[in-house]
Amino acid sequence: MKLGVCYYPEHWPESEWETQAAQMVDMGIAYVRIGEFAWSRLEPQRDRFSWEWLDRAIAVLAAHQLQVVLGTPTATPPKWLLDESPDIVAVGADGRRRGFGSRRHYCFSSRTYRAETARIVTAMAQRYGGNPAIVAWQTDNEFGCHNTTVSYSDEALRAFRLWLEEKYGNVETLNRAWGNVFWSMEYSSFEAVEAPSGTVTESNPSHRLDYRRFASDQVASYNRLQADIIRRYHPDVDIVHNFMGYSTGFDHHKVGRDLDIASWDSYPLGFLEQGRFAAAEKLAFMRQGHPDFAGFHHDLYRGCCNGRWWVMEQQPGPVNWAPNNPAPLPGMVRTWTWEAFAHGAEVVSYFRWRQAPFAQEQMHAGLHLPNGEPDVAAFEAAQVATEIAALDTGADRRSSVALVYSYEAEWIVEIQPQGEALSCYHWTYACYTALRELGLDVDIVSPQASLQEYRMVVVPCLPHADDRFVAELAGLTVPILLGMRTGSKTESFQIPGQLPPGALQTLIPLRIARVESLRPDHAEILTLDGADYRAHYWLEWVETALPALMSTAAGRGVWFKHTTATHPGIHYLATWPEAALLRKVMQAIAVEAGLAVEEVPPGVRLRRRGEVQFAFNYNAHPVTLASREYVLGEALIPAGGVAAWKGR
Amino acid sequence: MKLGVCYYPEHWPESEWETQAAQMVDMGIAYVRIGEFAWSRLEPQRDRFSWEWLDRAIAVLAAHQLQVVLGTPTATPPKWLLDESPDIVAVGADGRRRGFGSRRHYCFSSRTYRAETARIVTAMAQRYGGNPAIVAWQTDNEFGCHNTTVSYSDEALRAFRLWLEEKYGNVETLNRAWGNVFWSMEYSSFEAVEAPSGTVTESNPSHRLDYRRFASDQVASYNRLQADIIRRYHPDVDIVHNFMGYSTGFDHHKVGRDLDIASWDSYPLGFLEQGRFAAAEKLAFMRQGHPDFAGFHHDLYRGCCNGRWWVMEQQPGPVNWAPNNPAPLPGMVRTWTWEAFAHGAEVVSYFRWRQAPFAQEQMHAGLHLPNGEPDVAAFEAAQVATEIAALDTGADRRSSVALVYSYEAEWIVEIQPQGEALSCYHWTYACYTALRELGLDVDIVSPQASLQEYRMVVVPCLPHADDRFVAELAGLTVPILLGMRTGSKTESFQIPGQLPPGALQTLIPLRIARVESLRPDHAEILTLDGADYRAHYWLEWVETALPALMSTAAGRGVWFKHTTATHPGIHYLATWPEAALLRKVMQAIAVEAGLAVEEVPPGVRLRRRGEVQFAFNYNAHPVTLASREYVLGEALIPAGGVAAWKGR
Amino acid sequence: MKLGVCYYPEHWPESEWETQAAQMVDMGIAYVRIGEFAWSRLEPQRDRFSWEWLDRAIAVLAAHQLQVVLGTPTATPPKWLLDESPDIVAVGADGRRRGFGSRRHYCFSSRTYRAETARIVTAMAQRYGGNPAIVAWQTDNEFGCHNTTVSYSDEALRAFRLWLEEKYGNVETLNRAWGNVFWSMEYSSFEAVEAPSGTVTESNPSHRLDYRRFASDQVASYNRLQADIIRRYHPDVDIVHNFMGYSTGFDHHKVGRDLDIASWDSYPLGFLEQGRFAAAEKLAFMRQGHPDFAGFHHDLYRGCCNGRWWVMEQQPGPVNWAPNNPAPLPGMVRTWTWEAFAHGAEVVSYFRWRQAPFAQEQMHAGLHLPNGEPDVAAFEAAQVATEIAALDTGADRRSSVALVYSYEAEWIVEIQPQGEALSCYHWTYACYTALRELGLDVDIVSPQASLQEYRMVVVPCLPHADDRFVAELAGLTVPILLGMRTGSKTESFQIPGQLPPGALQTLIPLRIARVESLRPDHAEILTLDGADYRAHYWLEWVETALPALMSTAAGRGVWFKHTTATHPGIHYLATWPEAALLRKVMQAIAVEAGLAVEEVPPGVRLRRRGEVQFAFNYNAHPVTLASREYVLGEALIPAGGVAAWKGR
Repeated sequence: MKLGVCYYPEHWPESEWETQAAQMVDMGIAYVRIGEFAWSRLEPQRDRFSWEWLDRAIAVLAAHQLQVVLGTPTATPPKWLLDESPDIVAVGADGRRRGFGSRRHYCFSSRTYRAETARIVTAMAQRYGGNPAIVAWQTDNEFGCHNTTVSYSDEALRAFRLWLEEKYGNVETLNRAWGNVFWSMEYSSFEAVEAPSGTVTESNPSHRLDYRRFASDQVASYNRLQADIIRRYHPDVDIVHNFMGYSTGFDHHKVGRDLDIASWDSYPLGFLEQGRFAAAEKLAFMRQGHPDFAGFHHDLYRGCCNGRWWVMEQQPGPVNWAPNNPAPLPGMVRTWTWEAFAHGAEVVSYFRWRQAPFAQEQMHAGLHLPNGEPDVAAFEAAQVATEIAALDTGADRRSSVALVYSYEAEWIVEIQPQGEALSCYHWTYACYTALRELGLDVDIVSPQASLQEYRMVVVPCLPHADDRFVAELAGLTVPILLGMRTGSKTESFQIPGQLPPGALQTLIPLRIARVESLRPDHAEILTLDGADYRAHYWLEWVETALPALMSTAAGRGVWFKHTTATHPGIHYLATWPEAALLRKVMQAIAVEAGLAVEEVPPGVRLRRRGEVQFAFNYNAHPVTLASREYVLGEALIPAGGVAAWKGR
Repeated sequence: MKLGVCYYPEHWPESEWETQAAQMVDMGIAYVRIGEFAWSRLEPQRDRFSWEWLDRAIAVLAAHQLQVVLGTPTATPPKWLLDESPDIVAVGADGRRRGFGSRRHYCFSSRTYRAETARIVTAMAQRYGGNPAIVAWQTDNEFGCHNTTVSYSDEALRAFRLWLEEKYGNVETLNRAWGNVFWSMEYSSFEAVEAPSGTVTESNPSHRLDYRRFASDQVASYNRLQADIIRRYHPDVDIVHNFMGYSTGFDHHKVGRDLDIASWDSYPLGFLEQGRFAAAEKLAFMRQGHPDFAGFHHDLYRGCCNGRWWVMEQQPGPVNWAPNNPAPLPGMVRTWTWEAFAHGAEVVSYFRWRQAPFAQEQMHAGLHLPNGEPDVAAFEAAQVATEIAALDTGADRRSSVALVYSYEAEWIVEIQPQGEALSCYHWTYACYTALRELGLDVDIVSPQASLQEYRMVVVPCLPHADDRFVAELAGLTVPILLGMRTGSKTESFQIPGQLPPGALQTLIPLRIARVESLRPDHAEILTLDGADYRAHYWLEWVETALPALMSTAAGRGVWFKHTTATHPGIHYLATWPEAALLRKVMQAIAVEAGLAVEEVPPGVRLRRRGEVQFAFNYNAHPVTLASREYVLGEALIPAGGVAAWKGR
Repeated sequence: MKLGVCYYPEHWPESEWETQAAQMVDMGIAYVRIGEFAWSRLEPQRDRFSWEWLDRAIAVLAAHQLQVVLGTPTATPPKWLLDESPDIVAVGADGRRRGFGSRRHYCFSSRTYRAETARIVTAMAQRYGGNPAIVAWQTDNEFGCHNTTVSYSDEALRAFRLWLEEKYGNVETLNRAWGNVFWSMEYSSFEAVEAPSGTVTESNPSHRLDYRRFASDQVASYNRLQADIIRRYHPDVDIVHNFMGYSTGFDHHKVGRDLDIASWDSYPLGFLEQGRFAAAEKLAFMRQGHPDFAGFHHDLYRGCCNGRWWVMEQQPGPVNWAPNNPAPLPGMVRTWTWEAFAHGAEVVSYFRWRQAPFAQEQMHAGLHLPNGEPDVAAFEAAQVATEIAALDTGADRRSSVALVYSYEAEWIVEIQPQGEALSCYHWTYACYTALRELGLDVDIVSPQASLQEYRMVVVPCLPHADDRFVAELAGLTVPILLGMRTGSKTESFQIPGQLPPGALQTLIPLRIARVESLRPDHAEILTLDGADYRAHYWLEWVETALPALMSTAAGRGVWFKHTTATHPGIHYLATWPEAALLRKVMQAIAVEAGLAVEEVPPGVRLRRRGEVQFAFNYNAHPVTLASREYVLGEALIPAGGVAAWKGR
């Protein structure tokens, strides 16, 4: 448990660096990320490098025993490079070339940009590789941010055709896989394939899914290009990338394979405003963030890189980019920090050391005001530093529950929502919330992950369940929940021959003959244990001999359970229940799994790290827990506060 | 009264064709539409035709005495053709060329595409013309679907200039007709005229109306191009096209002149979701469709082709293209089918035989599941087939009421709504609903139609009433209702010199000095027979010596009646009354016409075919009618059900 | 106090001109604006001028002693000119060239268009300069209308680079001013700078502000180009331009420097519908307009040109361009006219003489119907003409309160709202409303104006307060109110080194350490004089030793006052209070200023001209004032009516 900070020496007079470094040490900061937007300062003109200022900045930090995370500056190619090579920019779905003047304007498929990337990363790695102050390298910055994964440039199209040829071998195979006979969409060569853009009505979903997979693979190979160079020149150092909240444009699990550490940028207030939460929730959690937002991403990114993860950028105050930008409650920055550690973070790093008085993010708070005086978060960070030193939690442990999340599933549902409210992410999030409200710790894992050591497995929505995954589930002996649309598609985005859930019918004997998507203002009424509940958005018509554990008023079963010699319960859920009902379903399955569950107070979340149980109060009012010996805080947790104790 | 089905042999193994044909016959299907998207299978490369598979498919169907409707495949030009001739694609109002990968990407004005159309249609007609299994040809598929009537390509601009030259002769005439002096918009040649696109603020409405007329004419001449070729090679066969619901982009009456049969594609649930209905209505009719949606289009398209019409595609279950896609109520597909027959359909054809497991419409239900097992609608269709055989209704008869609807009127109101809620279509639909709730059968007719045999004529909104139409009305001796904006424009989209309603002032002595469009949240209060009602959206200031039958609270008359020696009542309605009031107005006029009217129960609709009176219950609850001898169903009509009896 | 009318002789047969002119005189009209869209009639082909018709039209008007305002026709370059020089058109942020067929399609930066402008204006000025019938020239028409100030053409980019070079001298200075180091946005030459368009995420706010300033300057220099030519050929005549309502795209104060008279086009109903008012307000004032809309703009444009101003276009009935277009209440046109005179207008000119039966504005009412008969407004205008003759008000006087409004401030807040509800214009308007509801007369002035003679100064929002303005405030001895964000930015759009409010800290000892923008559905509760009020949208964290006059429930001060030997009260307001509270704040400061205040009845506004106090009833119901000797109307003012009396 270490604290870090994002720092831009190039934004401040060199005369202040020494003081700033000393201040960092004083407030308990150990890690300093630098460099990730500095290309125009490192190479003001082609091949005219200016390393000296960065040499000196690193030296100052090193002199204070600060550990440096050095970013490659590829998220912001400078203007001279665009002027030389206009083909490096991405093109939007609107057919327009991305303009210069912000960031992330490059196309992942540009051969020129890949060559330029190799050149600048090699130059940096040659100069700083082996520098003992540098403990990690960050590749680029926030891949996919501002919806930049997918490009429609000529370079992207060229690369897509090669990707297709590699995948399918011959174009007849592609035509069959996509069902191109449907509307005379058949191609006679890979060169004839276009990007799925600008069509009169929807283009082929198989086409779109392959384009999304291709675009995601381009991110992964671009990241690998950087990682390979860094490893060559600096072999024994960690490589990290900073992912984003609610970022599903590329497969983070695949990118994670080339990293040593996953990290993410945690802005709970900005994402509350931007996210799909009800207005009442946005209002209630306005200065705290949604209770599950940070936790969900902590648990998601912990699953991306063998369990090693950081928060690279932690929100310290109001940000500048959401529709509305309130300040966190007093103490909230400390609470967010502790919550990250409770979920197993190695490092929590604040963005940024000092608020910039200029350019795009001048309204984004930092640990310090633009004039250098400490802002609120500086005091809260310093408090956490002190508290860390006093609290040994022991190592983080595997959670009991695995929640399976797939980026490809996300794309499939985005491409074919079938109902306007459908979203793989939001449904997965709803399942996560239900589990967390029962006090359960959750690992969010990829369908490629091993599930052998979990005591309960939840698969909210996995349209394409491959053979390995089906076999993995078949080999378990714990309760499993399969949610709507799981098994409903083949790899090629077709309906499986035996109907959904396809090969999963070997686990639970039922099939889906029809699906209904429902207006958001319509509810199906379900009865469970004598109480009425509502279900929304989606209703599958299940054909099975299994008795329904729960049915609609019209008698349509929506929850089925199959028990075998090896499996205590394989469950199928054919609708989207409201929160209270979803919690009931999860509770029943958790009990079946032998897990101890209890509803935690509304707005409170629990998380165990090692020997210590943490409680986080996301409410705007205090909450009182049971009397215990607290190692952090006390039974009365203030609004936005944290408490912790040892044992259960 | 025959059933049909849309069938894609190219989607299924040839080995299954024989079985499928036998199943069709077994369930009572007589017509099979095929071929309309198969260009890439019929001509995989230029001039390399593959007719054999289609020969065999037709032969299999013919062997089972199934009657084939053969579609020309021009809605989906294949990729090799686009690669050869990029100029065949349409261009959107956004200036972007339409991409390949869905359908309807061609431009009606492309000379190349017209030549290619002639080539493929000729090739098909040469091969299949005279084949006795083929009882009808379908031209293309769903002209105008996905908003494809209007194109802004260079080819369209070229054709538009020629169209203008043909219409106006010299450019000074055009300048005067459009009033181009207004903002220095005068042209010195036809070559200087541009498409009305991309202007800073609105372009000239006369310019836009001519562009809409031109685009509509291009559809008509494109259809004629195909029809002429087919007739040359297959002289004694019906030619049909499948129109859409709520499709007003081109003049269906004009296209109908070159067809033998009009048909349309009836998707009551999808169009409920997409349409401009109140949320409460969308919810109430979620699994039934709006009670007037199918009937309105049945009555509209019956008026397009001398009374001959089919439903070419009947929704069989959930579709894939609306914001939300629920399933029809049990029995609803049967009810929709009977309703089409009650309105006079010759054929009702389901879309499609079997749900495709691949490509864009894989979530669109069929009569069979993707795996070939029968889905719900297969049983309902079979039931109808049995019922048809047992019920002889006699031929359909002319309705008592003519409702005049003009596509040009639609364009005028779209181009110049003047108030955000104005819509010719929705106002006409409101008038239709009022009439139908009174149990009246309605013919929706073009302003070019003869009105001589009707007992009541309603003209909801006809801004440009030409001399022939005015004379037609003058020659009647039945009650007439003229609605708002009727007679308010000349052919050139100018205000008539004598003020609105222009020449119609010869029928009713009043004129409109001013119009107000009203915020949708504002209501004018009207009093009739002692009760208060609300009117919305539109209020005309009428100058007349006639007494008002109804006035606003401020004393502004909104309903006037003029009686002459020949006319029992010519009515003018200067606002948009709420439904209950509009029904009262229609009732008064119907009584004046000597028509028997009675309010039918809410959500129920009546329709007579020959000797049989049908009742359709669009409610989600049962309705009980009077005790009678029912020839279909019984007095208690279930939710979404149908009943029928002989006599009144 | 004179009446005028906008007249288009080119729209009507020459045989009617004489009659029309006589009618104008009869109804009391003195001024006639003509010519501003007539380029295609004045020069049908290049260098083939047709002056004769305009000569005759002017002669007819002159013969009736009507005073002519002659417009230059540059708002509508004709088609032949575009065909010759396609580079004259503007390009949108969407990258598309503006199409021909409406108006304002030219780019202010086009060198070709500036040359063409000089050519046509010179030709007109040569022909009509010195014509004694012409008392004023109008340059162009409604600069900026339809969002046309900013263009992204190549010509604009070229001119922007020159503008930057002129401003910054060298590119390093620009890089520092904009903080381009932030995301490697540094430029190595002015030629490398692009327009701020099409970027992946927001572009640099400093970059955008300079682009807005540049675009505004282009309007000013374009207007100056015309004014200079006119002055050369017609030296002793007034030059006027007609501004718009809610038009903030360019700096009207700067453009005003080259004019003799400011004027604006007053459409209270259209702007109510288009504006950011609550639905309940739009409904309540549907046929009257918002009570402050006309007044705000009267007071704003009076400050643009040394106090001389007109209403060039006064709404006479329903317009055609708002979402909904109701008719004004009976008498409302008279009331609007009197309100303009009460605020000091020299001339109120109606748009237009006669409703055009053709082209874009055929649904826009005039003084006469399309057939030439008088419409409602003709009678109301004639009544005003009679009333003017009978009422000598004396000259308009300076108001007591100065409300400072800056177009640059508007751009800053638009570029960086930080919260979705923030708007400099709407917040200034709210302050104006509060003052007007207290019966105070207000001058809206530029930050460059002298404030020496005002008794109270309100600065709602001036992010960039330059040294001159700070000195101007420092030199006053009257109460001052500084609103949120004032002093928060430098000229370069950076946060000032001493934190906001920057140099204004010399006037009031406080600083803003943090700002919060708040969801619109959130309210902070403030208490004043024992009552609870709500504040919205924005909350600044103020650091100061001053006691707070008002605080949030959480104890955060939002209203501070500093008193010095010279200043009775310098106030700072750190949030956006609801209307009732804002009125309380304004009242307290007005009392401090020694101004007599009283709340006027809701929906009523007062305005003094010379010796006469006017009252305007914007309600849809009558209002009764005190008994007095009225010189216009009486104590019972009807809905939408006016009354006036001498004395207080």
